[in-house]
Amino acid sequence: MKSIREIAKLSGVSTATVSRYVNKTGTVSQEKAKSIQAVIDKYGYVPNEHVKAIFTGRTKDIGLIVQNVTNPFFSELVDGIMKVSTKAGHTIIVCNAMGDEQKELEYYQSMQKKRVSGLIVVNTCNPGIYKANTIPLTSVDRRIENSNFIKVENELGISQFLNTYNARTFKKPLFIEATNYNQSSIERKKGAETYFALANIRLDEAKVDDQNTQVSEVVIDNLIDNDLIICWNDLVAHKVIAGLTKRGIKVPEDISVIGYDNIQINNFFAYELSTIDQDISQIAKVAVQTLLETIATNNINDIVIKQKLIAGNTYKHKK
Amino acid sequence: MKSIREIAKLSGVSTATVSRYVNKTGTVSQEKAKSIQAVIDKYGYVPNEHVKAIFTGRTKDIGLIVQNVTNPFFSELVDGIMKVSTKAGHTIIVCNAMGDEQKELEYYQSMQKKRVSGLIVVNTCNPGIYKANTIPLTSVDRRIENSNFIKVENELGISQFLNTYNARTFKKPLFIEATNYNQSSIERKKGAETYFALANIRLDEAKVDDQNTQVSEVVIDNLIDNDLIICWNDLVAHKVIAGLTKRGIKVPEDISVIGYDNIQINNFFAYELSTIDQDISQIAKVAVQTLLETIATNNINDIVIKQKLIAGNTYKHKK
Repeated sequence: MKSIREIAKLSGVSTATVSRYVNKTGTVSQEKAKSIQAVIDKYGYVPNEHVKAIFTGRTKDIGLIVQNVTNPFFSELVDGIMKVSTKAGHTIIVCNAMGDEQKELEYYQSMQKKRVSGLIVVNTCNPGIYKANTIPLTSVDRRIENSNFIKVENELGISQFLNTYNARTFKKPLFIEATNYNQSSIERKKGAETYFALANIRLDEAKVDDQNTQVSEVVIDNLIDNDLIICWNDLVAHKVIAGLTKRGIKVPEDISVIGYDNIQINNFFAYELSTIDQDISQIAKVAVQTLLETIATNNINDIVIKQKLIAGNTYKHKK
Repeated sequence: MKSIREIAKLSGVSTATVSRYVNKTGTVSQEKAKSIQAVIDKYGYVPNEHVKAIFTGRTKDIGLIVQNVTNPFFSELVDGIMKVSTKAGHTIIVCNAMGDEQKELEYYQSMQKKRVSGLIVVNTCNPGIYKANTIPLTSVDRRIENSNFIKVENELGISQFLNTYNARTFKKPLFIEATNYNQSSIERKKGAETYFALANIRLDEAKVDDQNTQVSEVVIDNLIDNDLIICWNDLVAHKVIAGLTKRGIKVPEDISVIGYDNIQINNFFAYELSTIDQDISQIAKVAVQTLLETIATNNINDIVIKQKLIAGNTYKHKK
């Protein structure tokens, strides 16, 4: 592939003329256009995006910082965000911070060096990372100052499910939360706590690592005396159901299990998981839309995403 | 944030001096260094990576073209490639071509404009897209000319499984392949065909879309007369097992089911899927290593990844 200088020399015109022609930024005589195109057809030439980035001071790139791409919730969200932003002519640069604050900071700095036109940050480890940020930003799940904020009604989602399906008929409910800091897990737990406190029922607790989502055999052994297991996400719920099934315990006849997210992978199980649908494709769409608006107008917005209860067949209230 | 010109003006030095200082490309007097750093501390400055990209003619970016990030096989591979390349100081730009040749071509052109230092292409829709390619490239699953090639022994994997676990005891085996062009699916099917042809047993066929991996109820209804279902990947196997379970058919007592990949999500099911382990983290590691070698030395390599049989408990040969 030839450089713009070589193309100019071979066409017998100036580099400025080649630039006007390939970037469509000005008029070029028909004769010159023809000779430039002939050279490009023969030797090949692809414009260098970095030149444009320097003169315009910006790119069409959007940095997307997430915590764990192997978690289906994040990979579905990444997929959705890519689809919407590609349509709008933007490239997504995915940064997988893996719940590590230092890594997230390094990715943020790397995005600054790349002069991305915007950032989408999902479930940040620490909003303080973006304290002095001047890049248009949309934050999902956890508020970052001076940025768009997409809130998922985690607390309300859980308490609505419990209230709608009469969870006060259970005697020994338990909530499994994430070990490391996770805003969604905290809010979902709060929803369950509030509901059961009002019903005067004690809520037991267990914890699992939110990066690998492994639920150890010890955790399973410790929850077989409970009658309702509320899991902070769907993957944990599947792991609990697998553990109970291996022990000959029936779901929901013996123990009811609830998840959260309604990830696509739920379709691959023989049971229909009782869960709360996050509308991941809607989050993706709104994340890109709000960001593009901020890029264009500097306006910022707060958006709340509505959720949907999925009754499923892993939950059955007591008589 | 200030530009390099503003930093230079405020420090009372030339932009060339600021550049030498921040990029560590030459010596700067202690006095000047001190005054530049004071200005940066006060106003903030992040070097513009695009300037470096133009002068050096390359970036530290690697373009990663895959077909479907919501498929756990791809998301695990993306995760592995990100981990290895981040350690080597490279940024990964993920392109989700979704099995669409036109989209893959557009992504390739976009990576050229970005002057990425290398490309990793997983399961390309059409190797012809890269016919005139001059960027260092590693291809996984399907060969691209003048590039590193990481081959997974799909055909051997299936035939070894069938041979090791005595599949000639089945009377009515069936293979479920991908509808659209998919090199892995084709090779895996060939492995099963070869094995059963030698045993003089007819192999039935069914097809599923490899983008959404939905196995319709009609497909399930049509395979309940078979005694062994070999699925081109694990997700299809899970869907088949869910469908059979809902119909009261026992796996493996009534029908045996085999998958392929050994994705992490398999840990979330109550059964242990019988499958062939692709060693996804090894593929990721070798993909990055071979690419970095090509970038440094122009050498290209062919690498074969060894697989491992997972006996599991969804397969049981007949007496």
